[in-house]
Amino acid sequence: MQRVCLVIGAGAGIGSHVASRFARAGYHAVLCRRTDEGGLNRAVAAIVADGGAASGFLLNAVAPDTIEERIAAVEADIGPIEVAVYNLGAQIGDRALADTSYKAFELGWRLATFGLFRTAASLCPLMERRGRGTILVTSATAAMRGNKGQHSHAAAMAARRMLCQSLNAEFGPKGIHVAHIIVDGMVDAPDTLGRMLGADGFRRLREERGLEKDGLLLPAEIADTYFHLAQQHRSAWTQELDLRPYADKPWWND
Amino acid sequence: MQRVCLVIGAGAGIGSHVASRFARAGYHAVLCRRTDEGGLNRAVAAIVADGGAASGFLLNAVAPDTIEERIAAVEADIGPIEVAVYNLGAQIGDRALADTSYKAFELGWRLATFGLFRTAASLCPLMERRGRGTILVTSATAAMRGNKGQHSHAAAMAARRMLCQSLNAEFGPKGIHVAHIIVDGMVDAPDTLGRMLGADGFRRLREERGLEKDGLLLPAEIADTYFHLAQQHRSAWTQELDLRPYADKPWWND
Amino acid sequence: MQRVCLVIGAGAGIGSHVASRFARAGYHAVLCRRTDEGGLNRAVAAIVADGGAASGFLLNAVAPDTIEERIAAVEADIGPIEVAVYNLGAQIGDRALADTSYKAFELGWRLATFGLFRTAASLCPLMERRGRGTILVTSATAAMRGNKGQHSHAAAMAARRMLCQSLNAEFGPKGIHVAHIIVDGMVDAPDTLGRMLGADGFRRLREERGLEKDGLLLPAEIADTYFHLAQQHRSAWTQELDLRPYADKPWWND
Amino acid sequence: MQRVCLVIGAGAGIGSHVASRFARAGYHAVLCRRTDEGGLNRAVAAIVADGGAASGFLLNAVAPDTIEERIAAVEADIGPIEVAVYNLGAQIGDRALADTSYKAFELGWRLATFGLFRTAASLCPLMERRGRGTILVTSATAAMRGNKGQHSHAAAMAARRMLCQSLNAEFGPKGIHVAHIIVDGMVDAPDTLGRMLGADGFRRLREERGLEKDGLLLPAEIADTYFHLAQQHRSAWTQELDLRPYADKPWWND
Repeated sequence: MQRVCLVIGAGAGIGSHVASRFARAGYHAVLCRRTDEGGLNRAVAAIVADGGAASGFLLNAVAPDTIEERIAAVEADIGPIEVAVYNLGAQIGDRALADTSYKAFELGWRLATFGLFRTAASLCPLMERRGRGTILVTSATAAMRGNKGQHSHAAAMAARRMLCQSLNAEFGPKGIHVAHIIVDGMVDAPDTLGRMLGADGFRRLREERGLEKDGLLLPAEIADTYFHLAQQHRSAWTQELDLRPYADKPWWND
Repeated sequence: MQRVCLVIGAGAGIGSHVASRFARAGYHAVLCRRTDEGGLNRAVAAIVADGGAASGFLLNAVAPDTIEERIAAVEADIGPIEVAVYNLGAQIGDRALADTSYKAFELGWRLATFGLFRTAASLCPLMERRGRGTILVTSATAAMRGNKGQHSHAAAMAARRMLCQSLNAEFGPKGIHVAHIIVDGMVDAPDTLGRMLGADGFRRLREERGLEKDGLLLPAEIADTYFHLAQQHRSAWTQELDLRPYADKPWWND
Repeated sequence: MQRVCLVIGAGAGIGSHVASRFARAGYHAVLCRRTDEGGLNRAVAAIVADGGAASGFLLNAVAPDTIEERIAAVEADIGPIEVAVYNLGAQIGDRALADTSYKAFELGWRLATFGLFRTAASLCPLMERRGRGTILVTSATAAMRGNKGQHSHAAAMAARRMLCQSLNAEFGPKGIHVAHIIVDGMVDAPDTLGRMLGADGFRRLREERGLEKDGLLLPAEIADTYFHLAQQHRSAWTQELDLRPYADKPWWND
Repeated sequence: MQRVCLVIGAGAGIGSHVASRFARAGYHAVLCRRTDEGGLNRAVAAIVADGGAASGFLLNAVAPDTIEERIAAVEADIGPIEVAVYNLGAQIGDRALADTSYKAFELGWRLATFGLFRTAASLCPLMERRGRGTILVTSATAAMRGNKGQHSHAAAMAARRMLCQSLNAEFGPKGIHVAHIIVDGMVDAPDTLGRMLGADGFRRLREERGLEKDGLLLPAEIADTYFHLAQQHRSAWTQELDLRPYADKPWWND
């Protein structure tokens, strides 16, 4: 049985880079994403080609029992989940209240908040029994303040943040490290930012801000901080930190 | 047609006192609560006996269409809703993660977050057309930080807070005043605190902290600040404030 | 002996309007400002002409013993200071680090932070003996977040905010209400904004944003909220609130 | 010329462990502290014995020109300061307002705030010219909220935090990484905690919380996170994070 790093939301950006970072350090990376079996298989194959261990699963995080069953199966078949990375986004772009349907508002909550609750409800008892474990939660600017057009996203992400704090209050003393990571900027990720902007827009943005200019958050660099968090000694844990490109204004500035 | 102050969550604490404060100033108070038709009728009768105008309706805020239909009916039958007070709580007491069912977690969100979203979705277009309106949202310590046993409550209230901020960002410039009121302490309210503690516990607590000692938040005094918020001139609006008894430690201390 | 409302920083904006609001309610308003004896006398005369009681004093809040002696003299000669309004600003405009002298940085602290500490050190023992009192502290966006060019201002105002919190922690339970008021926008005040922009710039800004548009914070309206804070019952005190024009973005939005 | 890590406040706790962590990675560690030349020499010798490069200097950070001259001398004699660690504390224990002298209040500001301002004023132009540099600022719970007896400490640390934010706003885009590190718990450090508690109290605390229990922040572990921050790629910088022992309540909980 190998120690496992489970990534829920393993797209081509943060998710798969974090998976690959942990695999390089000897974890069996388990990558879960909703769609794109081809992309999933390529990510797994890349880790294996690099000498790591990895498995991939399609997982619809808003359907009942999916998260719960995946966690149980990984623990039974692969190994103990030492690190879980909850990396599902819930950004739907800027939408006026009139354009935010009840369904969209609820879906934001199911992805951003309830999915993490289900993950914690399944994992924390296992980690508590082992006396240790790490849950790394990707979060966003919207967790820190509401903004125009962010009705669904801000509510969902703020709930995610407070859920991290209440999980930390209960499970920190039991050896489970829950960290809330505020990704406060645009990530150089084809699956999310790329899809939102379209191929042309994404290419233009990368030319303007990316590459040598480091104006986009590079997922491989983000992954180093995720890995550091999971290695922190329990006498000095971080519960919350932010990440942004050097030239970006933080959310609290305009 | 009278100008209306609609209170969603008009129990015997903050809700009915705020209703009665606005009625004294000439608003038609519309009181909505889920249960206790007797208590609802008494609250309405007390306002009327005091020379005010009031109506009462039972309203289940988690059932579909209830909020939407009530708002439409009030606007059609009574008058324009100038002030809406969203006063539904979602406190379920301290519960470990293992004792927080999926259903309880979702119910917290439906009461604290989704109900406010539905209220805003129904009201904001009407208020926007009139170029003015006030939405006062009762909130709690849990909106500011997660804590042990607060998995459901903190997530739901934090989402409520951020929803207030995103509503403010879209509708403030259109003349709608959205205020988030952090009630950071125990309210002297038989329907909520009283029910949570039981009759004996509530009586003991009132003897220890209440009465002359002002150790509980008195709903009639809270109501004065709600009323002040609704009277603020639009050149100097408050988006967020806290309320607590003088001798209580704020949430950031302890 | 009359009950006194002492205003430290009684320029033509918030300070004198707050003084006049409290005078209308029967307080003896004591106005202190550093310069412009003519303006000071006119503000006092206007209150008296309006039927109120007022006195004015020049006060240099960064010189030794000035605040201390003024408080002692007011208590001896006029009456007990029931409400103190600390309204000194410390904005020096946007300045790069290279243009912020040690002297300017220290002066910001002396005005914004140390002056409030001296005021509290003098007043709190008197208020504690009386079992009640109110200290209203005007603050600014810069108390909530640092920003470009705000090295001096943000450090000074953040210190002011935390001093309010520590004063509240010690003196709230002794009946002293300390409120921190975040004025998050431009105030329609000739002495501060007017001086910073120059006569022409100020006139243009008022034409663009002020008057019917309510795009500047009107000091007379701000004063109503200061007055409300001082009247809150001790069972429901506000420690912190924000104020801004309806169409302005809050500091947490861009 | 070697690249330098300058530590201002290099006592036996965080300061010297951070110095030694950077020395292990090839930096020349420059340790500065106010007193205890013997302890300073031992810390330098330990780094050298470990194969690293280090120098030590006594430095009184509240005396004029000391910081400025030390920075100039290090740049001239040893090498470019790539990383500066501002690690001076300003905790004076819990003191009621009546027991907090003007002098103590001002000293807190001189140590916690003004010393950092002087450091930045000296270093930022040099780092800006080089297009890179890192300033790591140790901070405390008191930066986040005022509390009873913390009048001096909270004001000083909050000012430090906001100064970090304004420095970041100006110098982040110029390649200077400013990080604010909230050490939210007791550090296992003989020079600070040890001195505050006395030898016996410190030994008892270590027996109760320290050693196998990891109930105190271990400076060697803290140093790993400081080092990680200085290695973050500029596309993914952290401006703020917290550190505390796994079983400790965060400042926002009680």
